[in-house]
Amino acid sequence: MQTAATVRAACRTGRHTGPTPGLAAGFVQANLVMLPKDWAFDFLLFCQRNPKPCPLLDVTDAGDPEPKHAAPGADLRTDLPAYRVWKNGELVAEPTDVRDVWRADLVSFLIGCSFTFEAALIERGLPVRHVEQNRNVPMYRTNLPCRPAGRFRGPLVVSMRPMTPAQAVEATRVCDGFPLAHGAPIHFGDPTAIGIPDIHRPDYGEAVDVRAGEVPVFWACGVTPQAALAEARPPFAITHKPGHMFLTELRDHQMKG
Amino acid sequence: MQTAATVRAACRTGRHTGPTPGLAAGFVQANLVMLPKDWAFDFLLFCQRNPKPCPLLDVTDAGDPEPKHAAPGADLRTDLPAYRVWKNGELVAEPTDVRDVWRADLVSFLIGCSFTFEAALIERGLPVRHVEQNRNVPMYRTNLPCRPAGRFRGPLVVSMRPMTPAQAVEATRVCDGFPLAHGAPIHFGDPTAIGIPDIHRPDYGEAVDVRAGEVPVFWACGVTPQAALAEARPPFAITHKPGHMFLTELRDHQMKG
Repeated sequence: MQTAATVRAACRTGRHTGPTPGLAAGFVQANLVMLPKDWAFDFLLFCQRNPKPCPLLDVTDAGDPEPKHAAPGADLRTDLPAYRVWKNGELVAEPTDVRDVWRADLVSFLIGCSFTFEAALIERGLPVRHVEQNRNVPMYRTNLPCRPAGRFRGPLVVSMRPMTPAQAVEATRVCDGFPLAHGAPIHFGDPTAIGIPDIHRPDYGEAVDVRAGEVPVFWACGVTPQAALAEARPPFAITHKPGHMFLTELRDHQMKG
Repeated sequence: MQTAATVRAACRTGRHTGPTPGLAAGFVQANLVMLPKDWAFDFLLFCQRNPKPCPLLDVTDAGDPEPKHAAPGADLRTDLPAYRVWKNGELVAEPTDVRDVWRADLVSFLIGCSFTFEAALIERGLPVRHVEQNRNVPMYRTNLPCRPAGRFRGPLVVSMRPMTPAQAVEATRVCDGFPLAHGAPIHFGDPTAIGIPDIHRPDYGEAVDVRAGEVPVFWACGVTPQAALAEARPPFAITHKPGHMFLTELRDHQMKG
């Protein structure tokens, strides 16, 4: 059976470098942000003020690559399938290991992920199209502003799953029970109402089919911090590559808050 | 009718300087911690790692005395009934206004309070003894350690309400629904099991009667940061005086997370 530990081991040894939706069902997946200590207060405050896109699961001490609460013994420098390295707000590399660029002043933030509630949706017979289509989840920048904090500000980023209206209602009930995994949707229907010009062209991840009778349903997304990083332009940062998450030892039911 | 705004105004003008349990029912009350900016990251992390005693309701920017999320227009320097001023971890004053000691580098933290769920308990016919006896709630240092964060560490502080076992079960169900107000109890029964030598001698607040057939029931308490401050000894800090809380514009039902 696939566990969080086996997925982390596969990432560490370079055997798994792809997206993680659907892997190690029942284990919580997390978004990663690593920032120098002198940027950490502003970012922690950004997460506190924007808990829907940025529900914090664990924050390390500066210089410690081990998330002692979320996955004791793991190493955040090697245990994700793919990373993004940022300099002055520009994406400069997408390596599968960041030991060579790691710095002793980095604080790591693990943020809840919508993949957590997808198992619960599937269990109830609700469609999760990108899992069905074996794609990365589609994600979009919106025109909804986050609450700023220090040097961080930026738009809410959302993930999207197409559903019928009745399914969207049921999904809302299910996801409301997972406040640490983005909770209930923030919008459904017309994408332009939240500033998304073309549902077929996501800003991150891959497009999925929206079928007759379905509407797009949008959830706050843990990629939101990457949009804020691009605006704040810290001199250095490391994140996960969208859709390529960290597998924690936390269990989905613990995300009920 | 008494509102949060009328209580804050009474504090600001010095007409109210006493404890706040039972005041402005339905409005969320909050614990206050003010720290210099260079201590703010460690404290924010302490709250993130200890959400049961330290559920964050609002955090201000450095130098801003207005809690823009929790109570727009309020002034945290004047709108509490009583404060504690700390130097190097020692309590040096208990003024009713802190404008004269305010510093432009202070970050203010507002933390959820058990008074929030007391209205829900009373509504269900459950006893809240210190309200009945018109006293401040009894609070105790325990031998349960908080998760440390940077320079902050210390014991969990708890509040106590005596109940019959059946009432304690019902109170657990009610309070579990308020994760931003300390949630379900952390212990009931034998106080020595969590390091409290004498239930009649609280470390903060006032003792209340425990009647025949009742057991003490303990909840994580927002005074926990004050025990951590006493250990970390930051050069300067301001807190509320225990039991003398800040009245926010947030409503109790919003503390359901």
